[in-house]
Amino acid sequence: MTRRKKSGRKRRTGSGIRQLPWQEIINPYPALEVLSAEQVEQIHLASLTLLENQGMRVLHAGARSLLAGAGASVDNDTHIVRMDRGLVLEKVALAPPQVTLQARNPAKNLTLGGNHLLFTSVGGPAYCNDLDRGRRRGTFADVCDYLKVVQSLDIIHQEGGGPFEVIELPPETRHLDLYHAQIRLLDKNWQANALGRERARDAIQMAAISLGVSVADLARKPALFAIINTNSPLQLDIPMAEGLIEMATAGQVVCITPFTLAGAMAPVTLAGTLTQQNAEVLAGIALAQVVRAGTPVVYGAFSSNVDMKSGSPAFGTPEYAKAALASGQLARRYGLPLRSSNVTSSNTVDAQSTYESAMSLWAATTAHANIIVHAAGWLEGGLTASFEKLIIDAEMLQMMSEYLKPIIVDDSTIALDAIAEAGAGGHFFAVGHTLSRYETAFYQPFLTDQANFESWEEAGALDTQARANRIWKQCLEDYQQPPLDPSIDEELTAYVARRKEELGS
Amino acid sequence: MTRRKKSGRKRRTGSGIRQLPWQEIINPYPALEVLSAEQVEQIHLASLTLLENQGMRVLHAGARSLLAGAGASVDNDTHIVRMDRGLVLEKVALAPPQVTLQARNPAKNLTLGGNHLLFTSVGGPAYCNDLDRGRRRGTFADVCDYLKVVQSLDIIHQEGGGPFEVIELPPETRHLDLYHAQIRLLDKNWQANALGRERARDAIQMAAISLGVSVADLARKPALFAIINTNSPLQLDIPMAEGLIEMATAGQVVCITPFTLAGAMAPVTLAGTLTQQNAEVLAGIALAQVVRAGTPVVYGAFSSNVDMKSGSPAFGTPEYAKAALASGQLARRYGLPLRSSNVTSSNTVDAQSTYESAMSLWAATTAHANIIVHAAGWLEGGLTASFEKLIIDAEMLQMMSEYLKPIIVDDSTIALDAIAEAGAGGHFFAVGHTLSRYETAFYQPFLTDQANFESWEEAGALDTQARANRIWKQCLEDYQQPPLDPSIDEELTAYVARRKEELGS
Repeated sequence: MTRRKKSGRKRRTGSGIRQLPWQEIINPYPALEVLSAEQVEQIHLASLTLLENQGMRVLHAGARSLLAGAGASVDNDTHIVRMDRGLVLEKVALAPPQVTLQARNPAKNLTLGGNHLLFTSVGGPAYCNDLDRGRRRGTFADVCDYLKVVQSLDIIHQEGGGPFEVIELPPETRHLDLYHAQIRLLDKNWQANALGRERARDAIQMAAISLGVSVADLARKPALFAIINTNSPLQLDIPMAEGLIEMATAGQVVCITPFTLAGAMAPVTLAGTLTQQNAEVLAGIALAQVVRAGTPVVYGAFSSNVDMKSGSPAFGTPEYAKAALASGQLARRYGLPLRSSNVTSSNTVDAQSTYESAMSLWAATTAHANIIVHAAGWLEGGLTASFEKLIIDAEMLQMMSEYLKPIIVDDSTIALDAIAEAGAGGHFFAVGHTLSRYETAFYQPFLTDQANFESWEEAGALDTQARANRIWKQCLEDYQQPPLDPSIDEELTAYVARRKEELGS
Repeated sequence: MTRRKKSGRKRRTGSGIRQLPWQEIINPYPALEVLSAEQVEQIHLASLTLLENQGMRVLHAGARSLLAGAGASVDNDTHIVRMDRGLVLEKVALAPPQVTLQARNPAKNLTLGGNHLLFTSVGGPAYCNDLDRGRRRGTFADVCDYLKVVQSLDIIHQEGGGPFEVIELPPETRHLDLYHAQIRLLDKNWQANALGRERARDAIQMAAISLGVSVADLARKPALFAIINTNSPLQLDIPMAEGLIEMATAGQVVCITPFTLAGAMAPVTLAGTLTQQNAEVLAGIALAQVVRAGTPVVYGAFSSNVDMKSGSPAFGTPEYAKAALASGQLARRYGLPLRSSNVTSSNTVDAQSTYESAMSLWAATTAHANIIVHAAGWLEGGLTASFEKLIIDAEMLQMMSEYLKPIIVDDSTIALDAIAEAGAGGHFFAVGHTLSRYETAFYQPFLTDQANFESWEEAGALDTQARANRIWKQCLEDYQQPPLDPSIDEELTAYVARRKEELGS
């Protein structure tokens, strides 16, 4: 083949790397079901029994009052809230099946639900890691670099709420610097940190400012997506309840995600873990609907297992894959969008890191997840955000997005004429059907090396991690900050300054 | 958790590594369908049209005569054979849906078809590769080492026909040494090399000797599985036709696998590639049935695409995954077992090698492949058999086999009592339900490292490749040759000596 002169559907964006254009991803295939309809019903019913009989401990007094007001039975000594199945299902039914999330670049607004699939960059690790500097506590400059790479990668629809913690910044106000950076450095949607009332409120205020709208407008057209983790088993703590209440009150998207690790925070059996996960999700969603009927919510599935030798979490396991697929069936049972994740336990960016990621990514995709959180960059069981893994995952996500483009079957693609033209024992390189299509016929990777051994060796015998290292540096070099109205930036700066004073930084 | 004292369903085998026991794998989930029923029918009909109008070039005169005798129209100048759809479908319908393959250890007999899934080690590369010695031409001693590791890994059901070529041995008789080594070093099923009449016949004779049966017995209870590649597009060469005829005559399993690389040996469009693949498979199967009605056959799917920049084959691509899934639908259309593969283009055992392998492995599995050829060890687009990749793939295969064990949903696994015992905010480590099940509850990897960063670093910060290197060496150290009746071995030795003389080595 002659070297392709220009890319077809591929393009050079702000980032100089060749990549797929920003796109909406639709999953056109049937969802894979690992449970029978009857088994889904068994888990559904058992989780309702759990909420009726054992109930959930809700540590936040306001949340308990809200639930009591809606008809739940509350024990004020133990803080256990019991909800009968009618109440739970009535509230869950108020949740919309789909929602649109605003981005400051309206071309990057996101549809969450239906057959739509969104990819989010990693959020929340303690450390960052790259090939040159190793694993370390990241600085604010590192976070900004990571955000710039996230902005550069068009396959990533949403930023994941801060790639890692910046311990050089004061904990009470760190979120303000992060939100400001997310708004400045990205023109795509970003996740809020809903750990406590202040962080949630600041996200809401700053998102409204960034979009030039009021908080009331924001409720009609949400922009924020926040993860609410239950303290499995069956407990909702105060900061997460505060976050949930703030987000739901403001009409923003609440993703209820129990951290149900089978064998530790959930039963050692997957059916038990799924039952408990389902109960906790339904309880959280019911609370969100009690706060504000119609709050957009997401069924968050994160069940995995622990390594029973060490007790440490294991990710990308066969159990994780089965739980993800079963969770898809449960979410569909309630007409709710599904959140899943791309995970690995690996401590380094090696073969394990991708075979575990692939296990979770395939399961999430075939489960018909609507949003895959931590889809790019997660390493080491979520303790580390890796610069190289971010690039590798982006390649894997691009591959998945191409896999989700259905095969076109018609006379021109069946191409009997082309087969006749090539002839028995011939080849297709010079056939007109090939020449008119070859530039865009196949997925063109930006990281995968398809060269033969000799060419690869001549080019330095770089492995995937080394090539990914070059690519994220290229992204940083090419990065251009997406323009932000200076008056909005001033307003944000003033907001951050005022809030830092209030929060006593 | 306390350290587990003994493994439950895991066990130590001849090989000292902890692994899953030898097992039959059943795929209990629905197959994923990427084509509509109508699209399957379009491809089916177009491929029949192709065989009727354009036909297939068959270079072997005997094969042409056989097809002519069955009613095909043969052009003796061009060697083009045209078959009408009635003839093709009548012959394809003679193929059995399922077959049992004998192994010299009857506990390792294989069921091929239905919902059964078999994994085969890599076969056919030119080179071998390991972390210590790099990529090189392998010696016969290297081949024997590779076979010993294949024997050690219980997740591998079948050996793939020789892991790599041994150029230090004369090409005319190399297969005799290989067959003898396959029989001696393995007690599991092994693939024959059907490239030409001599190699096929020797495989049949030696398989019969190894099992202590006659060639006629072998036809009733087949032991051999042979890949027949068409020379795509639409050509069957002489050596492969000879191999097909020998194997089919002897009632052994013939797997017709077109090497349809979209853009090079097949149309640049997947629908065209699938149409051509389907036509070539059906033609090959029809020939096998003409040779001997009821010959067990397999639908071999190997369609991928080329890198349109370089023209070199690309593997583990999104196109590969879609083609594998569509091929499953086509194979089921004819009630035939499906062969797929675990492939990568990567030149080294890195992140790419496993994200591409995972792409193909997930597609093959969700396509309901019955046999995944090259399931362990393949590297560099099939040019190299890697010792480390063999171990890594075995781990991925074990994970897949665990994923295929369905979730058990009943009162004891839903475990409401255990959830009550743990209590809100509690943990499950000490709950009776956990203690009675934790040893066998989850998949226990033998390669994957689930330790935390500090422990991993303390243990030498070994990446997956380095850990795999230790494991194959451990397998070699622990290897014990499975006993072979000395009289059978003598007979094989005599056979090999006589044939070497005949073949002029």
